[in-house]
Amino acid sequence: MKIRSFLSASGVLLCLAAAISVFAQSGEGPKPFSPQLIAELKQLHDAARSSNYAYELLGHLCNNIGPRLSGSLQAEEAVKYVSGDLRRMGFDVHLEPAQVPHWVRGIETAELVEFSGSVPNITQKIIVTALGGSIATPPEGITADVVAVETFDQLAALDKSVVSGKIVLFNRKFDQRMAKAGFADEAYDNAIGYRVMSAIRASEMGAVASVVRSVGGADYRLPHTGSVIYGQAPRIPAGAVTAEDADLISTLAKQGRVRLHLTLTPQTLPDVPSFNVIADLKGTEHPEQVVIVSGHLDSWDLGTGAIDDGAGVAMTMQVAQSLQSLKLRPKRTIRFIAWMNEENGMRGISAYLKDYEKELPNHVAAIENDDGPGHALGYFAHANRKTLDALAPLKDILADAGQNVVKISYESVGSDTEKLEDLGIAGFTVLVDSRAYFNYHHTAADTFDKIDSKDLQDDSAVTDVLAYALANADGPFGQ
Amino acid sequence: MKIRSFLSASGVLLCLAAAISVFAQSGEGPKPFSPQLIAELKQLHDAARSSNYAYELLGHLCNNIGPRLSGSLQAEEAVKYVSGDLRRMGFDVHLEPAQVPHWVRGIETAELVEFSGSVPNITQKIIVTALGGSIATPPEGITADVVAVETFDQLAALDKSVVSGKIVLFNRKFDQRMAKAGFADEAYDNAIGYRVMSAIRASEMGAVASVVRSVGGADYRLPHTGSVIYGQAPRIPAGAVTAEDADLISTLAKQGRVRLHLTLTPQTLPDVPSFNVIADLKGTEHPEQVVIVSGHLDSWDLGTGAIDDGAGVAMTMQVAQSLQSLKLRPKRTIRFIAWMNEENGMRGISAYLKDYEKELPNHVAAIENDDGPGHALGYFAHANRKTLDALAPLKDILADAGQNVVKISYESVGSDTEKLEDLGIAGFTVLVDSRAYFNYHHTAADTFDKIDSKDLQDDSAVTDVLAYALANADGPFGQ
Repeated sequence: MKIRSFLSASGVLLCLAAAISVFAQSGEGPKPFSPQLIAELKQLHDAARSSNYAYELLGHLCNNIGPRLSGSLQAEEAVKYVSGDLRRMGFDVHLEPAQVPHWVRGIETAELVEFSGSVPNITQKIIVTALGGSIATPPEGITADVVAVETFDQLAALDKSVVSGKIVLFNRKFDQRMAKAGFADEAYDNAIGYRVMSAIRASEMGAVASVVRSVGGADYRLPHTGSVIYGQAPRIPAGAVTAEDADLISTLAKQGRVRLHLTLTPQTLPDVPSFNVIADLKGTEHPEQVVIVSGHLDSWDLGTGAIDDGAGVAMTMQVAQSLQSLKLRPKRTIRFIAWMNEENGMRGISAYLKDYEKELPNHVAAIENDDGPGHALGYFAHANRKTLDALAPLKDILADAGQNVVKISYESVGSDTEKLEDLGIAGFTVLVDSRAYFNYHHTAADTFDKIDSKDLQDDSAVTDVLAYALANADGPFGQ
Repeated sequence: MKIRSFLSASGVLLCLAAAISVFAQSGEGPKPFSPQLIAELKQLHDAARSSNYAYELLGHLCNNIGPRLSGSLQAEEAVKYVSGDLRRMGFDVHLEPAQVPHWVRGIETAELVEFSGSVPNITQKIIVTALGGSIATPPEGITADVVAVETFDQLAALDKSVVSGKIVLFNRKFDQRMAKAGFADEAYDNAIGYRVMSAIRASEMGAVASVVRSVGGADYRLPHTGSVIYGQAPRIPAGAVTAEDADLISTLAKQGRVRLHLTLTPQTLPDVPSFNVIADLKGTEHPEQVVIVSGHLDSWDLGTGAIDDGAGVAMTMQVAQSLQSLKLRPKRTIRFIAWMNEENGMRGISAYLKDYEKELPNHVAAIENDDGPGHALGYFAHANRKTLDALAPLKDILADAGQNVVKISYESVGSDTEKLEDLGIAGFTVLVDSRAYFNYHHTAADTFDKIDSKDLQDDSAVTDVLAYALANADGPFGQ
């Protein structure tokens, strides 16, 4: 899932969950779809909802291939697998090269070696995972006192001498009540900056390492990984501890000195060649106009990337499979993409922006599904009113399945495709119940058993009709 | 939590949740408590519900001491801490010696090295934990094909040659629907035999190791440890994999050969001296008659033993603290006990049965709280109708707090105290909402943050009044 706004001081995400109530004020009704288009959309919707293709593909990606961190052998296998399936469907597949990072997790252990009431030879185990991209500690680890804070401001208010030589814990809580109320993205946005910026902020104050409370909503002592970035300040090892361990350290720090022994031995190896997997279903009337349907093929390495984002790839593949099996041909080109390296570098989308630079003005819309495979509710749009008006006939098609909520954003909704949205291209993603998404996101528990086959079918069905409508309805589309 | 009936073929646990409706048919009403006793019980109930003592004690046990597996330095510290607190309250503490096992967890890793669709150098990580008491694999681990079954019967139906030299996976599911319906103990009973007997059953068929699906209800890739036993068959290493990993292995085994590399390096060191912590509040009229109030001080080593069973010890200590602070003196002796070694050997209760053999006929009742600190509902009784009738006046005292459910068992309800119940002594435990108990039980996530301070107060309050009623009401009490 993308980071929507944490770096933007003015980043306010305005969301309106409305069943296209905009028409009430617009004065002009939506242009109707042709009877043929409506019939084809219904066919597509039905096809995805009765197909096991996406579920089986995702099972293979998770169970038979496994975690697909960029640069890994598994990521390479996944590229082969997905492109092989597209070829079997009859597509001319383009493997678009991108050099990707090759970061490999190592040992990750931690324990409190001194704390209030501690006695010699008794330690408290701390469950930690390295953040993606982190440098290593020495092999024997580092031992230092912990400075526990909840916010960047609290850290900045300390004297640098207090932080120097210490390990900083950022105990920023993921707001589970916000997530449970249906605003999981917003809860993530509020916490994610503490993961991404943890090493920079701690290092600026002279810290020797940083750990952040896991960004996620579960209480099963589960560490959540994710990327950390470095800046001008010296690079320091950066990890994430579980919510429980963050609470333990903070509690003990209030009682007195807390000394942590931290060992993280990841390696950053040379970049390796990898690929976006791209296949076009050529448009019959405007082949030069492109509607992207996508998910990202890489995943974090702790789990098997079922919800993040094998599911998004599976939905993308289901759209391809449904269109091919029904032999439907859109007016505009539908481009299926399994992006590489969304999680830790965005090298796939960067290559695309360069390689397809001349075609970008003809990109009509970009769909990327990366919010997990929860119960389908409708779609989430970063698009202007005219675009939404043009899609309004979808409302009736999706109503019976309870999939006709349109949530509107004034910011990007895609993860890789954010870069396309930044150019003014309309962005979409399937709108799902993501209340539990961040319980599993970036953890070892992101595994295939979390997939509900019916939900995956429904998510694919929404993607299906949205893509086909964008490829056939009258435009122009934009933000 | 105790294993109630898995080994008993005829073990049927009959439970009646009833607000002492037995009186409707009994013909004689319960004997009323004296006004003084009622007043004292209300005082005790209020005292526990407004005290932070239990919560703070439990915080120290979990956060400042940590996991308390028998034989560990932490278990030793816990004995010192609890006995120190009892002495500060004015009790003459008896540390009753017991030699306890000293089993120490080692490395525990596993990965699938060959499976359907696998390619060289790609493995699938399996999250495993050693079962308590397991022997070790060689340091380099063992690699063998997996035979995946769901039941003992399925294994027994295989030809021995099929199992010989293999690793057996018992993928027996914990029935989460049963647990969520309020029958968590029963769900546990249905699965726990597969953990305890896994090594014996697999070894009898010639297996070189066994792994069992974690006995618990969560889906956060969390392994649950617990004891395994050995019999006449050769001892083999025994672990528990997470629910997710059990599903993965079973899925792949249906597709073809699955080869597992398993490394478990626990050590069984020589037994070490340890102790039950015992303190008596002498009875004023019948000092020789004993009502036990207890929990077990040892815990598993993955978490910090907050719910299993630091909470039970904390409730016990709260009863002692409330009685002392109110300067109440019961007619019978109330004996507070923090048992040692409930989890992996029962050496504490065994020592007690021997040391107190002559006093056992004067044991009136035994309370042990080991079902976690969930919302208090009442009490769970292994007692005859006369005993329940004698306690009936508690109903009114507990009704306003919603704590007057009496659940009846024809089998033992205590864990250590089961051995006393086996002698005919009436057994009790606080009845709590334990629907989520087995999500955390025996895992790394059994930590202090799981404790709701209000629930702990309420559980202590029920224990308080139950103990004081048993120590003051007219008997006789029994099963």
